[in-house]
Amino acid sequence: MQPPSLDIVNRAIGAELARATYRYNERDAALYALGIGAPADPLDQDELKFVYELSSLGFQVFPTFAVVFSYEFNRQLAKGEIAGIKYNPMMCVHGEQLLRVLRPLPKAATVTSTISIADIYDKGSGLLMVIEIASYLDAGEKLAEARHSLFFRDLGGFGGARGPILYWKMPTRAPDYTHEERTHEKQALLYRLAGDDNPLHADPPMAAIGHYEKPILHGLCTMGFAARAVLKHCGDNAPSRFDSISVRFSNHVFPGDTLVSQMWRETEGLIRFQTKAKERDVVVLSQGWIRLRD
Amino acid sequence: MQPPSLDIVNRAIGAELARATYRYNERDAALYALGIGAPADPLDQDELKFVYELSSLGFQVFPTFAVVFSYEFNRQLAKGEIAGIKYNPMMCVHGEQLLRVLRPLPKAATVTSTISIADIYDKGSGLLMVIEIASYLDAGEKLAEARHSLFFRDLGGFGGARGPILYWKMPTRAPDYTHEERTHEKQALLYRLAGDDNPLHADPPMAAIGHYEKPILHGLCTMGFAARAVLKHCGDNAPSRFDSISVRFSNHVFPGDTLVSQMWRETEGLIRFQTKAKERDVVVLSQGWIRLRD
Repeated sequence: MQPPSLDIVNRAIGAELARATYRYNERDAALYALGIGAPADPLDQDELKFVYELSSLGFQVFPTFAVVFSYEFNRQLAKGEIAGIKYNPMMCVHGEQLLRVLRPLPKAATVTSTISIADIYDKGSGLLMVIEIASYLDAGEKLAEARHSLFFRDLGGFGGARGPILYWKMPTRAPDYTHEERTHEKQALLYRLAGDDNPLHADPPMAAIGHYEKPILHGLCTMGFAARAVLKHCGDNAPSRFDSISVRFSNHVFPGDTLVSQMWRETEGLIRFQTKAKERDVVVLSQGWIRLRD
Repeated sequence: MQPPSLDIVNRAIGAELARATYRYNERDAALYALGIGAPADPLDQDELKFVYELSSLGFQVFPTFAVVFSYEFNRQLAKGEIAGIKYNPMMCVHGEQLLRVLRPLPKAATVTSTISIADIYDKGSGLLMVIEIASYLDAGEKLAEARHSLFFRDLGGFGGARGPILYWKMPTRAPDYTHEERTHEKQALLYRLAGDDNPLHADPPMAAIGHYEKPILHGLCTMGFAARAVLKHCGDNAPSRFDSISVRFSNHVFPGDTLVSQMWRETEGLIRFQTKAKERDVVVLSQGWIRLRD
């Protein structure tokens, strides 16, 4: 696949894409929570509350579920063209994710999301597209804001801006908390039913087109595991304390990998973290932070 | 809880219960298939076809999915009263299941099921209620027939008929095929989203009310694992070959147990089987058979 012309890129920046409507209930939220590994211990009420609608603690929607609101955009993404830019969907990976959740998510809702292309950068090795999403309840209340950065591996070198370099200082001290959790061999097959049905995460021949030896886990699934770890260790496992999360997807994860998240509490409300795939000793989520509310 | 009077029982026999309507699509069928353990190997296309809608073999609905069509009845069952018979839902277990599927199930459909009480037996140690279900497509075509036998553990001794003794001869020769597969610790939490949200399968305190040390796996989930094993070893893993299945739920299964299904091919079209929980060496499905079509 050829990189787009600079002209096509410049016209694409700022484009409003089709709105996405997502209707969910407790079952969808529970399926998502199972998809990101909850509960680590199926007998632990404090995690059952994310998957069991009659939980004695009251059913609660895990906050990063909000990334699913723009599900329809994934369908659009799978078609291989956005705002005139053509690509091979199997060569598109998630680069970075920012998500802010403005209030605890309702147990059931219909959510409408506006979606636009905020920026497009030329990273040399690929094209980075920043998608901006704002999600609203029917009555107009904003529920969440997100920035998905998509990296198209074969489309670099079109002569565009390099984009900002993020400043993230890796703490030099030992982590304040470390959390280890193994994903399941079928984690991607489960997560996809709740979050993103891109064939890259299910179909071996499609994964091979993307030069992966087998289907990879969704970056947002890995992010969900990390968010669970941080909220559990640093935020009382309380969705009401979750404000926002930011991660870079620095390497792929295979279903079955063990995820090790290292956390540094910078302030009461700011947790830095990174996540490694233990067996292969690679950092899979880097430059991570989560903001917590009081 | 007291057993019902014989009078109440006699009036309940033959009662027509509320019809159930179930609308499903590929995602629901895929979730069910994951719930019963498919795919054993996430890279095996021959099992991916049950969970991956773009499978190169064509998406196929696993035939025992038809037990989900009367999902609404499970909700009714959870209320603790059917046709005047009152019970503790945590003391109700699935006794036996018969399911006949008349044709390969559509990828998506709206199915209406008629539900009636075919018989009620006094087993001494409990009350056995036989529920008869027939499921139809909108256009009137019959898709499936089922008999659920429900065992209410604390309601025996009301003076009713004992019911027929099933004749099932355990083969004396070694099994023709043996299939071993481990369930997941979260298997019940997953299966319940597709098939039956009875708290007995999720909530430790509720399981304790039923005198279980922890939540147990759904009998129909175990049946699904066994059906997968038989169809794979004896029926070309082809849903079109599945005609019917019958099992007795002779012991509970805990999520995480390893299931060992032993199969005897009596004729080309009749497979007997039984399934054990390996770690505890107990037979969990007994008197099993599956009929296959040519």
